[in-house]
Amino acid sequence: MSGKTVYLGVIGVGGVGTHFLTQLSRLPNAPALVLLARSSQTITSPAPSYSPAIAPSDWQSAFSSSTLTKSGAWNPEQIASYLSQAPGRAVLVDNTSDPTIANAYPLFLSKGISIVTPNKKAFSSSYDVWKSIFNTAASTSSLVYHESTVGAGLPVISTLRDLVATGDRVTRIEGVFSGTLSFLFNSFAPVTAPSGAAAQKWSQVVSQAKDLGYTEPDPRDDLNGMDVARKLTILARIAGLEVQSPESFPIESLIPAELEGVSGAAEFMQRLPEFDDRMEAIKKQAEAEGKVVRYVGSVDVTGKAVKVGLEKFDKDSAIAGLKGSDNIISFYTERYGKNPLIIQGAGAGGAVTAMGVSADLIKVVERLR
Amino acid sequence: MSGKTVYLGVIGVGGVGTHFLTQLSRLPNAPALVLLARSSQTITSPAPSYSPAIAPSDWQSAFSSSTLTKSGAWNPEQIASYLSQAPGRAVLVDNTSDPTIANAYPLFLSKGISIVTPNKKAFSSSYDVWKSIFNTAASTSSLVYHESTVGAGLPVISTLRDLVATGDRVTRIEGVFSGTLSFLFNSFAPVTAPSGAAAQKWSQVVSQAKDLGYTEPDPRDDLNGMDVARKLTILARIAGLEVQSPESFPIESLIPAELEGVSGAAEFMQRLPEFDDRMEAIKKQAEAEGKVVRYVGSVDVTGKAVKVGLEKFDKDSAIAGLKGSDNIISFYTERYGKNPLIIQGAGAGGAVTAMGVSADLIKVVERLR
Repeated sequence: MSGKTVYLGVIGVGGVGTHFLTQLSRLPNAPALVLLARSSQTITSPAPSYSPAIAPSDWQSAFSSSTLTKSGAWNPEQIASYLSQAPGRAVLVDNTSDPTIANAYPLFLSKGISIVTPNKKAFSSSYDVWKSIFNTAASTSSLVYHESTVGAGLPVISTLRDLVATGDRVTRIEGVFSGTLSFLFNSFAPVTAPSGAAAQKWSQVVSQAKDLGYTEPDPRDDLNGMDVARKLTILARIAGLEVQSPESFPIESLIPAELEGVSGAAEFMQRLPEFDDRMEAIKKQAEAEGKVVRYVGSVDVTGKAVKVGLEKFDKDSAIAGLKGSDNIISFYTERYGKNPLIIQGAGAGGAVTAMGVSADLIKVVERLR
Repeated sequence: MSGKTVYLGVIGVGGVGTHFLTQLSRLPNAPALVLLARSSQTITSPAPSYSPAIAPSDWQSAFSSSTLTKSGAWNPEQIASYLSQAPGRAVLVDNTSDPTIANAYPLFLSKGISIVTPNKKAFSSSYDVWKSIFNTAASTSSLVYHESTVGAGLPVISTLRDLVATGDRVTRIEGVFSGTLSFLFNSFAPVTAPSGAAAQKWSQVVSQAKDLGYTEPDPRDDLNGMDVARKLTILARIAGLEVQSPESFPIESLIPAELEGVSGAAEFMQRLPEFDDRMEAIKKQAEAEGKVVRYVGSVDVTGKAVKVGLEKFDKDSAIAGLKGSDNIISFYTERYGKNPLIIQGAGAGGAVTAMGVSADLIKVVERLR
C-alpha cells in the first residue's frame, strides 16, 4: 500500500520466460528486477545497493549492460541469499520446469521470499512438499501464487481458492486439462462426425498433432496422462484432499502396453497404427450411445476420488463441444447447484501462461507493498 | 501482511446481505465488524475503542447484543466519519442497490475507507462518477473491488482486469449477462426445438418465469435491457472505453412500444400475448438460418461500440448451448486468439453474489494488513 520497493528475481528465459519479460517490461509500477538467471548464467544488480535494476527485456540486452554483475549458474542457496538481503520484500518468479528450483521453494519462503510460478513440479510431488511450502509461507508471511500451473492463464486456481475460502462446498471438479489431448480427441471424435474416408484414424491424428508441434517431442509424454494427473493433484489438494502423489490414483495411459518398452518416439509412432482398432472400438462404443469420447480428469471431492482417463460425454455437453486445443474446467459446488461454474479457453502457450504469471506477480506485489 | 486489525462496516441485510453475513461468520482471520446498518437502523461497536466487535450473524442477534450501540439511520457522512476514525484501515461493504450510498463512494474513499460491493449503480452511471471513484481511490491508497457487479460471483471483473493489467489487447467481449433473459430465451428458443404444441409462445415463457420468481416483480425491469446495459458499461470502461452512461449506446428493449405506457405489470402481462407474433417471427427467422435467437450484450473494444439486444447464434455455439438461467461471458483477446476465454455459470442469486463480495473482501483485507 505504501509504495515500498519490491525486489524481483526471475529464473528461466525459455518460451514462458521470454513472454513474461516482455509483459514485465510494460507493467506500470513493476517491482525492481534485480536478478535474472538461466541455467548457465546469472545477472544481478550490484549489492548492497541492489541498484541499478535490470531493464526487463530479452536476455541478450540485459546481459550486455555494463552496470550489472554477471556470474555463472547460481544454486538455490545463492539465489535465496542474494534476494533475502535486498533492502525490501523480495519475490522469485520461477519460469522453469526444473525440480531443483521447485524443491527449494521452502528454502526461499523460509527467508521471506515470495514465489510466483507456472512450474507444477513442487505442487504435484509428495504431499509433504506441498505442506512444507504452504506451512513455511504462512509462518513467514511469504506468498505463493501459482495460477499458471493449471490451465495456463485461465483463472482456475484463483477461482477454486475463492470458492474454498468463502466457504462453498466444492463437490466435483471435472475437465479437459491438456491442450494436446483436447486437440487429439476433438479431431479424432468430433461431435459432428465426418463420414467415411474423412474420418481419421487415431495414429493419424497423433501424427498430425506431432507435426503441428502440439505434442511433446515424444508424444508418449502427453499420452501417458501424467501432466493431467499433476494438474488434478494440485486441484484436489486445494479442494482439501490429501493426495499423496500423482501416482496415488488411477491414470489411464493411452500408450498401448505393448509399446511401453519401445526405445524411442520414432519407433513408437511407427508402431502406433497397429493399435488403431482399439481406439476405433472405444470411439464406436461411445457413438452407439450417442456420445463422444474425451480424455478428462476429475476430482470427486465428496467421494475422495481422483481419476484421469477416457470418458463418454453427451454431444451437447460443454466438454464435447470444446474447440481446437482448448481446456475446460467445471466446478460443481453447493452454491452453484446443478449447473457448474465453467472456465474455458487456451490452456497452453507462452503468452497466456506468462499472463497468469504476470497477473500473479501484480497481486503479490500489491500485497507486499 | 503484518496482521493489523482491519475494521469493517456492512450496509444491507437483504438477500445478498444475509448470505454475506453467514459467509463472513465463517471466514478465518475475518476483519472486525464494527458497523452493521440497514435502512432504518445502525448497530456500531462503541467508540473510541471500536470494541467489542459485532458477531456477524443475522440482524436480530446483532441487534439484541447489549454491548453494542444502536442508532437510527445514519447518512453516508456519519458512516464515513465513524469508520475513518477506527484505529486502523477500514472497509465498507455495500450490499444495497441504493444510489445514495453508491454516490458517496468518493466520500468514503477520500477518507481512506476501501469499498467492496455488488451494487452496480456507482460504476454504471456517469463516466465522471467512475473517474471520481478510481481517481480518489488511487490518491488515498484505498481499494475498490466490485466483482459481483457483473455475473455475480463468476470471476468476470477480476479476469478482465488481469487481461488488461498484463497488457493483453481485449478486442471483444460478448455474452449473456442476465439470468432472467437467459432463462427466457433458453426456454423460448431451445437448441432442440420441441415440436408443435410443446413449443411455448413468448408471453407464456415470460409468464412462467414471473411465476417462478425469475423476473423482477415488474418483468419490464428485465425486458427493458437496462440491467444488461449497466453491466456492459462497467466492462467497457474496464476495457478502456470512455462510455459516458448506459444510455449512450443502443439498447434493444423487449417491451413492445405499444406497451411502454401501460400503468402496471398486471396490464402489461395481460396485453403481452397481443405481440407474440413478433417474437415468433424473430425466432422463425433465426431457425430458417439454422440458428437460435438470444439476448446478448457485446463490447466491440476495437470499434468502440457497445450494443445490447437480440442476436442469432449457431446452434453449436457456447451461447446457444447455455442452460437454465446461466450467464456466459466470452473475452476475445490478442493472446487468446480465435477461441475466446469463456466464463459460465449462475450469474444471479444471493449465495453466489455474496460469494463474490466475500472473496473481494478477503483480497482487500489481505492488501490492507
